[in-house]
Amino acid sequence: MKSKNRVFLVGAGPGNPDWLTVKAHRLLQQADVVLHDALVSDEILALISPRATVIDIGKRRGHKLLTQDEINALLVHYGSKVGITIRLKGGDSTIFGRAGEEIEALREAGIEYEIVPGITSAIAGAAAAGISLTDRRLASSVVFTTGHRGDDHQGLEWDKLVTSGSTVAIYMPGTDYGRLAAELSGAGLPASMPCAVVSCAGRPEQQVLWTTVARLSGHGALPAPSIVIVGECAAAIPNVTSTAIARIPVSADQHISAKEKAS
Amino acid sequence: MKSKNRVFLVGAGPGNPDWLTVKAHRLLQQADVVLHDALVSDEILALISPRATVIDIGKRRGHKLLTQDEINALLVHYGSKVGITIRLKGGDSTIFGRAGEEIEALREAGIEYEIVPGITSAIAGAAAAGISLTDRRLASSVVFTTGHRGDDHQGLEWDKLVTSGSTVAIYMPGTDYGRLAAELSGAGLPASMPCAVVSCAGRPEQQVLWTTVARLSGHGALPAPSIVIVGECAAAIPNVTSTAIARIPVSADQHISAKEKAS
Repeated sequence: MKSKNRVFLVGAGPGNPDWLTVKAHRLLQQADVVLHDALVSDEILALISPRATVIDIGKRRGHKLLTQDEINALLVHYGSKVGITIRLKGGDSTIFGRAGEEIEALREAGIEYEIVPGITSAIAGAAAAGISLTDRRLASSVVFTTGHRGDDHQGLEWDKLVTSGSTVAIYMPGTDYGRLAAELSGAGLPASMPCAVVSCAGRPEQQVLWTTVARLSGHGALPAPSIVIVGECAAAIPNVTSTAIARIPVSADQHISAKEKAS
Repeated sequence: MKSKNRVFLVGAGPGNPDWLTVKAHRLLQQADVVLHDALVSDEILALISPRATVIDIGKRRGHKLLTQDEINALLVHYGSKVGITIRLKGGDSTIFGRAGEEIEALREAGIEYEIVPGITSAIAGAAAAGISLTDRRLASSVVFTTGHRGDDHQGLEWDKLVTSGSTVAIYMPGTDYGRLAAELSGAGLPASMPCAVVSCAGRPEQQVLWTTVARLSGHGALPAPSIVIVGECAAAIPNVTSTAIARIPVSADQHISAKEKAS
């Protein structure tokens, strides 16, 4: 049944199996081949059908990571051979997931594909910490960007975004919070602008750090994967009774881990 | 067991039950009370436990919609009385979902709450149409904003965002594509800038319109809920073999509905 072969680009979300989509959950149990990133959690990998071939393409081969071309070639190889090939990525495939390049390779090879959406890191972090990314009183838009500010980012003016009412969520913020804080300050953000760092959102080892642009630089980095949410919406919430998994601290500049499982 | 009472702010995603999270799916079957918006699909409402009290707060009461204060009061009322109260919204609660105000009301009343994330409209539209919202070759960030450009939006410069490498996803674009196109042009976007309109993403009645800023104004509006995705990433993809549910047209400026169900 070669005509039924299909490659599914599946977002695994932040690692908590409860936050997978129903379809992603079902497909993992039906998969013939799964190619996954290093960021996908063990709890999610445990859901994969025992008869599936599972390939960790986030693993170093010798000392060299697979190139995107090599990953594309694997997708085309399996996509033309087996019924259900899954390309499994942390978060959502369409946000910092290289989906564009993989779609192009599959399309050129004439292989059917389908995107199954996932909970992206910013939305996971917001849910876990109890932050509304937009708020008609505070923020009328939200920007997802990355901490790697190379040539691609030089046009994105964070100060304008935030001061004109946008929340900014920074993916892959790196471990140097001093540099990140300097960049945010350098972009014109007020020292008092709230920011929250959410590490391992939705997982038992989740941590939330509530701070400000000025005070961010004094902190050690929280474990990856993490997200930094900047804007008025990210102010610490006093006296919160509960959120998804984290207990929210009552004062700013405190970071907490929360082991308790949500119901 | 009053101490176990909890209000869950649950994102229903775009309407396809397959795109609910596993946790949202399970909670709907355990709910005591569900307060839902008009945008939540019948297929998702059908998953709610038959013993739950279901309240449509998107329904007009006489000729007047419930105010946010009235909704908050209902959440506090049920949250203090029953075990599992669900506030069910289309998409994700933290993006254009008034979660901030509802969390504040619950917190002030001392009621436990938890956010269960959902697939927000931009991510659903991207998955359905096969668009990567970021792409290291084309777009290094993505902005979610709304078509209602009141005072809140005057600082958000769409031209700068798009030309500096950001994809822009416009929620609630309204029905006047002429006005929207004029706003995009007025913001300095090139006439040739690609945009895609995705209507009813992930549902059988899904439609995708591939067009440009210049040509958008000539089109009648697609049915709500819809999302407009603007940027180089939103260029029509020729010769696509398949995506989630839609068949993608081979030429731009064609809009298609696709009834076929994904596997």
